[in-house]
Formats: sequence, C-alpha cells, structure tokens
Amino acid sequence: MSAPLADQLDIVIPTIRNLDFLEEWRPFFQPYHLIIVQDGDPTKKIHVPEGFDYELYNRNDIERILGDKAWAISFKDSACRCFGFMVSKKKYIYTIDDDCFVAKDPSGKPINVLEQHIKNLLTPSTPFFFNTLYDPYREGADFVRGYPFSLREGIPTATSHGLWMNIPDYDAPTQARMDEWDCLQTCWGPHAFPHSIPARQHMVKPRERNQRYVDAVMTVPKGTLYPMCGMNLAFDRDLIGAAMYFGLMGEGQPIGRYDDMWAGWCTKVICDHLGVGCKTGLPYVWHSKASNPFVNLRKEYKGIFWQEEIIPFFQNLTLSKTSTNVEQCYLELAELVRKGLGHIDPYFSKLADGMVAWIEGWRLLNPPAASA
Amino acid sequence: MSAPLADQLDIVIPTIRNLDFLEEWRPFFQPYHLIIVQDGDPTKKIHVPEGFDYELYNRNDIERILGDKAWAISFKDSACRCFGFMVSKKKYIYTIDDDCFVAKDPSGKPINVLEQHIKNLLTPSTPFFFNTLYDPYREGADFVRGYPFSLREGIPTATSHGLWMNIPDYDAPTQARMDEWDCLQTCWGPHAFPHSIPARQHMVKPRERNQRYVDAVMTVPKGTLYPMCGMNLAFDRDLIGAAMYFGLMGEGQPIGRYDDMWAGWCTKVICDHLGVGCKTGLPYVWHSKASNPFVNLRKEYKGIFWQEEIIPFFQNLTLSKTSTNVEQCYLELAELVRKGLGHIDPYFSKLADGMVAWIEGWRLLNPPAASA
Repeated sequence: MSAPLADQLDIVIPTIRNLDFLEEWRPFFQPYHLIIVQDGDPTKKIHVPEGFDYELYNRNDIERILGDKAWAISFKDSACRCFGFMVSKKKYIYTIDDDCFVAKDPSGKPINVLEQHIKNLLTPSTPFFFNTLYDPYREGADFVRGYPFSLREGIPTATSHGLWMNIPDYDAPTQARMDEWDCLQTCWGPHAFPHSIPARQHMVKPRERNQRYVDAVMTVPKGTLYPMCGMNLAFDRDLIGAAMYFGLMGEGQPIGRYDDMWAGWCTKVICDHLGVGCKTGLPYVWHSKASNPFVNLRKEYKGIFWQEEIIPFFQNLTLSKTSTNVEQCYLELAELVRKGLGHIDPYFSKLADGMVAWIEGWRLLNPPAASA
Repeated sequence: MSAPLADQLDIVIPTIRNLDFLEEWRPFFQPYHLIIVQDGDPTKKIHVPEGFDYELYNRNDIERILGDKAWAISFKDSACRCFGFMVSKKKYIYTIDDDCFVAKDPSGKPINVLEQHIKNLLTPSTPFFFNTLYDPYREGADFVRGYPFSLREGIPTATSHGLWMNIPDYDAPTQARMDEWDCLQTCWGPHAFPHSIPARQHMVKPRERNQRYVDAVMTVPKGTLYPMCGMNLAFDRDLIGAAMYFGLMGEGQPIGRYDDMWAGWCTKVICDHLGVGCKTGLPYVWHSKASNPFVNLRKEYKGIFWQEEIIPFFQNLTLSKTSTNVEQCYLELAELVRKGLGHIDPYFSKLADGMVAWIEGWRLLNPPAASA
C-alpha cells in the first residue's frame, strides 16, 4: 500500500467516541501519525485501535497548552479539530470525521484518500482560467485549446477538498423528512425560515444518497467562494494553516455546523489574495450516517440567516497589499469581520477576538524560528 | 427515442463534405430540423442522407441573403457556422462538427446529446457560488450545506458546452508528435514560440485520447472565462444568440481555430453582465480524428501570442449599465475591442467592424417584430 509523504503529514481526527472506525482505514492510515482531538468530557477514555501512532489531546490538554487563549478553541463541536492543525509540526494535514469510511471507485477498488489528496496538493492549481477537461495535470489530461500558455504553470495548491458517497453534506432543511418539516414549521412558526428557502416539497430529501462518482478534480476559480466541508479535507499547513481556524461553535455559542464553512470562506479569500489555490473533487469517502435534522437545524438556524449577509461580505472584501502572509491576512480579516459583520450580532465581535486569539495561539506553538 | 423540443431547436452543421456522419446520429437527429452551412466551393454538391429535414446554405446563398454584410461571415473556416445561428427561427441551437460521432456512457449506452443539452439549458445556472456536488438540479443531487438559500433559485442558462471522448480539443503545440516539434522548430525558428510555452517534452501528446467520462455538469462561475469549443455546443438563441458570432477566420484572415474561442470570451462576459449562465460538462461526443498539427499551427500561430493579451482584456472589461440586452452589449463590446485590442494588430479593428456587421445582419434576419 502506498503511503506518500508519511513523515510529512498528520491526520487530525476530532471525536467523542472510540475510534473503531480506524480499523477500516488501517491499511491506509497506519503509516501516518494521528492527532486525535477528544471533544466533550476529558475524563472519558477514548479507545484507539492497536498499532496506530498517535497523540491525543482532551480539553484539559488544550487548556494547559493554550492557557488564556484556550477559549478560542470550540468545545462540544467538531470545530475543536483545528487545535490539531495548530499543534501539528508537519507540512500537510488531512482531517476526517469518525463516521467516514473507505469508499470504492467505480471499479470496486477501495479509494486511498491520502494518495489522491497528496496528488492534489503536490500539483499546481489553475484558478485564473477554467479548463474544460478539469485537472490539466492529471494523467490523460492537459490544457485544452485556447488555454493561455502563460497560465499553464499554475500556482501552488493550498487545500484539497474531498467529497462523500452515500450521505451527502446537506443542511437540515434539505435533509429533513416531510413530516419533520411539518413539525419544524409547527415548532418554529410559519416565519421561521427565510423567504428564500424554497417550498418544502422541493427540498426534503431524507432518502437521497450520493451514488454518483464524478471522476474529477478541479480548482475553484479565483473570486468564487465554495462551501468547504471539514469531513474529508487536506491542506498545506505552511501555505494556509494559520487561516484554518474553525471559529467559535458549540457550547456557549449561538451557532454550530458552520465551523468548516467559516474556515472555507476565510481560507478562500486569503488563498485568492496570496495567489495559492483551492481544489475540490476527488477523493471520496463513504459517509455513513446522517445526523438528526432537528438537532442540526437548531445549530444551523442562525447560520442559515446570517450566511445571506456573510457571503456577500466575503465576496466583496479586499485585503490590503501590505498583508503578504497568512497570519497578516488573517489578522486583517479579523478586523474586517469585526467592522463588517458586527451589526448582525455581537457574536461576530467575539468571533473576531477568537480569530486574533487563534493567531496568538498559532504563533505560540509555531514560532517563526521553528518553522523557518 | 426521446426528442425533446423537436419543434424549438435547430441543429447547425458547417461542412465541406458529404454528411454521411449523420447516419450514426439518425435515431437522435432525425426528429429535428438541420441547418447545413456549406463552406468552400458553392458549386460542389453536398450529399445529405435520406430522411433528414434540412435547409442548406452555400456561399452564394450567404452573399445573396446578407448582401454587403456577407463579408462578416468567414469563408473556408468552420466559423461560417454562425450564419446558421443567424438564419434560424428557433429558440435553441445545437451545433456539431461533422467528425463527431455518438459517444457511449460508462454503461455502454449511446449518449443522446440533445436530451442532455436541453436538460442543461432548461435548468438554471448557479454562477455566483460553487456547488461542490456539481449541478444541484440534477436528479440525485442538491445544494450542499452552506449554499446560500437566496442563490438556490439560480438564473436562466444561456449556453451548454459539451465535451469530447477520444481526440481531445488540444492546440497544435500540444497535439504535435516529437518529430513534428523538431520540424516545427526548424521551420519556424527557435524563437517561434512564446517563452511561456513549456519545454516540448511536457507537451507532445499525439497519442493521448480522452477516455475519462466525467459524470458532471457545472456552471462556469461568474467572472471566470473558459475555452468554449464549437464542436458540441448548445445555446438559447433568445438569451445569447446575437453574441454567438464566430469572428473573422479562414480565407483572407491572419488567424484560424479561434472562432469558437472568440465567441466563448464574448458570450461569457455578456452572460455575466446580463445575469444568465454558461454550463460545461456532459454530454460527450466521440471526436473521431485529430487535425494536422502543422496546418493547425499555421492557423493558431498568431492566436497563441494574441490570446495572452486578449484574455486579460476580457477579464478586465466592464460593460455599461445602459447595455441591457445582448445586441447592445455586443455593439458596446465591438467598440471596446476596437479601442482595447487595436494596438495588437489592425485585424482587431476589422474584427470590430465584423462584429457590427454581424449585428446588422442579425437584425435584418431577426427583426424585433418577428422575435417579439
């Protein structure tokens, strides 16, 4: 089994339970080092299958290591995974949810997610012009006629966003059953949802499973945002790690299930500014179970409204030319968030503080000398 | 065999030879009306297989119908196909090259290109935000978590750009054989190619065949240009037809094989301005033969250099708010081309004249009363 860059990549897994799901991943993950971020009760003992090389951090560890900055790491939410990004010393990170298993390609072959993510990260991105045959660096493909030669070198790739067979990553209104929708409407009232949520009959898809294997990787074009999901995600820590903060979610926060979205918006505008790329597509994981739409809706509820303002904010913001590295960009972005989104809810001012605390924590654990 | 919108779609085929390729398309194309644009010698008799409903225009017809505007329709180049777009009275156009045959999907089923193109055209586009599961309107797919609800209605679709199995649409430097490259270098001199053309060993792919069926359709994001190929292309004449001019190519012109690229750049910036969408992906055709790289290089040569300036021009241009329909946009674009690209070569001033003549011809054949 090929294990590319085994000494340069950490696998980060946030969890609240025993990691039996690793048994299925053993042939692929065993050569790598794991960073397990234990969420919830720190006295609970998490069982990790034999033979894996790992370090595990629980809430007490996070408090001990980050001290007065620990509050910026979410509690009781998988957003806590970003602590693993911060504490890693490797160049590359792969992060996966513990309800994701090995998917198979159309020929029935188990998919080596790390091999594909690393291919994605080690080949350039092409955000300035769309290649109609998708990833031009892939074997059997190239740039098509009319693709400018000056853009064929591409730019370095910062993130590789993988997809999911079986349970797709839908929001609560889309994943709910029809009777659940009726119940939601009753509980939350007729004006509970934004007008822009279409009629429920077009949305309720509780039985929908993703069975389409799209054999493609592509660069998300410059200036275009995408919904980055944290379930199956790889990135280059040197290029974008300091912006891969998953925000304030979970306990004590008015919002959940927007941790990866937040990181996706922030990293995309910073990647565009710094001239590095974001890819999406292959590889697939097999996502085993849909979470409860009622619970999800409670978490997502404010986010569904807020994103209607947050996304135009990110679409229209410009970082200054003096921000020339990720940390500078992220600190500038924190202040833009405070000024530009604070009117929506006091939460955004706290989030801006969290973004600053995140960078302080990042610098604490990744001092310039060590990373130079 | 399903023949959707058979009374609302014309198939436009430019050709210089007998249309025996239609035999293979018979089950799919026979319910539709064909517009055949005969290029080259107008006295030559083109054979069309029995049983097809068609009208055929040769150069004499074009001269007769367009009079003093006929010069704007290219001669001895497949760019002449756009005359068929102009003369059609239908809402939708599908255009195909006569060396393209029926491709098969991975299950071995022949692909009904029109059925897929029409699906693409009749469902909305989503250029403002990237959906990671591709076309959200397709059966088995939807908008993923984090996709703003206000953008889920989408906007009307103007163009559907299909792809090619077997021979990919590469430029001459990419499709040439190694020995052909040596010969090209000898013939054209060591400085014949832009510096940005990478070393030949990375490019020569004469044997490369596209065998990857990517089961996806997607919207090209707003603000992103793409290389639109005319081999397998459908569009909505009402929404974008008046901008689907394939430029001045072939006899008497310094450039060839950029007809569809030109139309692609122009239509994309106009679609972005008017708020209609461009899709690319399915359906595939089977492209049977690679054209001669020497001949192609002679045609493409100036284009390979010029596109390095043309593409930034299109990336940076802004149409004025007073241009609110396709014809107005196209006339404004013609003047921008004259001012913005004229310094490259006098050709662009002539091309701007051609763009104006095209709109005059379009209005002649599509008077407002008739289309209202």
